[in-house]
Amino acid sequence: MNAGFRYHGGRLTEACARYGGEAADWMDLSTGINPNAWNAPAGLAVDWRALPNPLALHALELTAAQYFGCALPLCAAVPGSETGIRQIARVLNLPGLYQPLSYGTYSRAFAQADAIADLSTLPRRPTALVIGNPNNPDGRVLPRARLLELLDHQEQHGGWLIVDEAFADCAPDWSISSEVTEERRLIVMRSFGKFFGLAGLRLGFAIAPQRVLGALREAFGDWPVHAAAIAYGAAAYADAGWIAETRRRLVTQAAAVDAVVRRHGLDVSGDCPLFRLVVVSDAAGLFERLAQQHILTRPFEDRSDLLRIGLPPDNAGLQRLDAALGDG
Amino acid sequence: MNAGFRYHGGRLTEACARYGGEAADWMDLSTGINPNAWNAPAGLAVDWRALPNPLALHALELTAAQYFGCALPLCAAVPGSETGIRQIARVLNLPGLYQPLSYGTYSRAFAQADAIADLSTLPRRPTALVIGNPNNPDGRVLPRARLLELLDHQEQHGGWLIVDEAFADCAPDWSISSEVTEERRLIVMRSFGKFFGLAGLRLGFAIAPQRVLGALREAFGDWPVHAAAIAYGAAAYADAGWIAETRRRLVTQAAAVDAVVRRHGLDVSGDCPLFRLVVVSDAAGLFERLAQQHILTRPFEDRSDLLRIGLPPDNAGLQRLDAALGDG
Repeated sequence: MNAGFRYHGGRLTEACARYGGEAADWMDLSTGINPNAWNAPAGLAVDWRALPNPLALHALELTAAQYFGCALPLCAAVPGSETGIRQIARVLNLPGLYQPLSYGTYSRAFAQADAIADLSTLPRRPTALVIGNPNNPDGRVLPRARLLELLDHQEQHGGWLIVDEAFADCAPDWSISSEVTEERRLIVMRSFGKFFGLAGLRLGFAIAPQRVLGALREAFGDWPVHAAAIAYGAAAYADAGWIAETRRRLVTQAAAVDAVVRRHGLDVSGDCPLFRLVVVSDAAGLFERLAQQHILTRPFEDRSDLLRIGLPPDNAGLQRLDAALGDG
Repeated sequence: MNAGFRYHGGRLTEACARYGGEAADWMDLSTGINPNAWNAPAGLAVDWRALPNPLALHALELTAAQYFGCALPLCAAVPGSETGIRQIARVLNLPGLYQPLSYGTYSRAFAQADAIADLSTLPRRPTALVIGNPNNPDGRVLPRARLLELLDHQEQHGGWLIVDEAFADCAPDWSISSEVTEERRLIVMRSFGKFFGLAGLRLGFAIAPQRVLGALREAFGDWPVHAAAIAYGAAAYADAGWIAETRRRLVTQAAAVDAVVRRHGLDVSGDCPLFRLVVVSDAAGLFERLAQQHILTRPFEDRSDLLRIGLPPDNAGLQRLDAALGDG
């Protein structure tokens, strides 16, 4: 198996090179990106010629803040939440703390970072604790009360809590965006690309006190995001009908994947419907078997018992997964 | 006059609010962006759904490096050269030095920055000297030999030279991209949006030794630019015919603007054909007069004698400028 597959999902070109086929022959289940993307209305024009309009950027941040349920002045667009987390780490300039099974960028964003398995033993010194909620790849959702306990601990010791809500759009009550205030040491990161299925756009948001947000805006400068990100983001976050329908549909799709996977005797879990985590004794073998049938999934470094599976785009895709799991 | 007009060009929404009209009624000459943009071929598809392909990003950087004439491993794509300069300043972590009449971001990018009018009196301590070449807004082009003298000085005192070549596409022999090596303390910034007329895309490049480039890649993370930036950039930098034709055309267009401006008794100068600098005793008055006729130009803070004028898109635009200058 190519080590690149364990670094990030979405490496379809490498998959074709190793296992054959063209990109169109493959079903890419290696990411947590919604395969049924928000479609831009025909009239939505993107003007690439002019500089991004600062007033349109402000309007995007207003629409997004309303959707997130946070205060407008505490919300800033960033060119992808992955980049945003790295810049937040630079602004805070504290040692990072991340959970062993979590998004790879958490450990790489900080000049110094340590893994912490047990959140009840947080160190009593200033740190920046990053929690994915839902966590990727296991889909664990921490209740609001638990997050606020962690925040209290961090504040008592001069640290910060960063909650990465990249996958939180699936259920609005998972989010603690509304808890961010000028006084608290809480930062929430949001991602546009996963739930709306447009990861190529690179659009994310930081919700943070203004002293942090000001430093972040200085780091990204006067045009933090491009013209299409502004146009698509503003329209999609305001599309309440599509959002409600997608929340319902993702739950149904995830349940259908679970039923298929369990029918083949595998354990599957996770609170977040955008991806499922399969516990299997030989994850590398299962990865390989699915790849031979041009289905790309996501294995993990140092966790040979785990394989993450994203949602197939439709029933045909689900049947294809079913057949591939049954084969061999 | 609104202070925003003196901060950056391209503030057309504010211009409409202050002087009336819709955006379509205005001719925006407030930036140095080519008004005759590169047109994407009809077959150029952008897939917003998938994460940007890392191999396609690598191919973009290869194509761009060939066009810049620099070594491939020393070239990294960034989400706009404005953001890129800010991040380079953070990586170098030195006091900045900038010329008083230059791009506003130079002074804002550094935690500490000083203006230096006379380049023959550079301080004998480690600094990051930023030179626009061509310089914006006066269009001055420093010869290669002079830039290399400045680089020698900076290296002798443990500093760096950053050459911002955002407008250098107009004449390939202006660029010192090929001088960047692992050993020298030279960084060149390039911008896609000006010459190719697609500023809304936010695509730029840093050419730098790998120890700097590595830190920059860490700062921007695994998907530094979006899917359309990769697709458009790779195709446009390889379009040698359009590039050659545009280099010729810009010179003709700039000469035509100069003839019109001089006919109205105004001094105009600059080596860079993407913008012209008018020296006029009452620049605010001229700005106002043109704005009344829905032509937006670029005034400057602390320089009431200067007005920058971009290129009109066509002959009708040139005649409109001519008529507006004659009126009043």
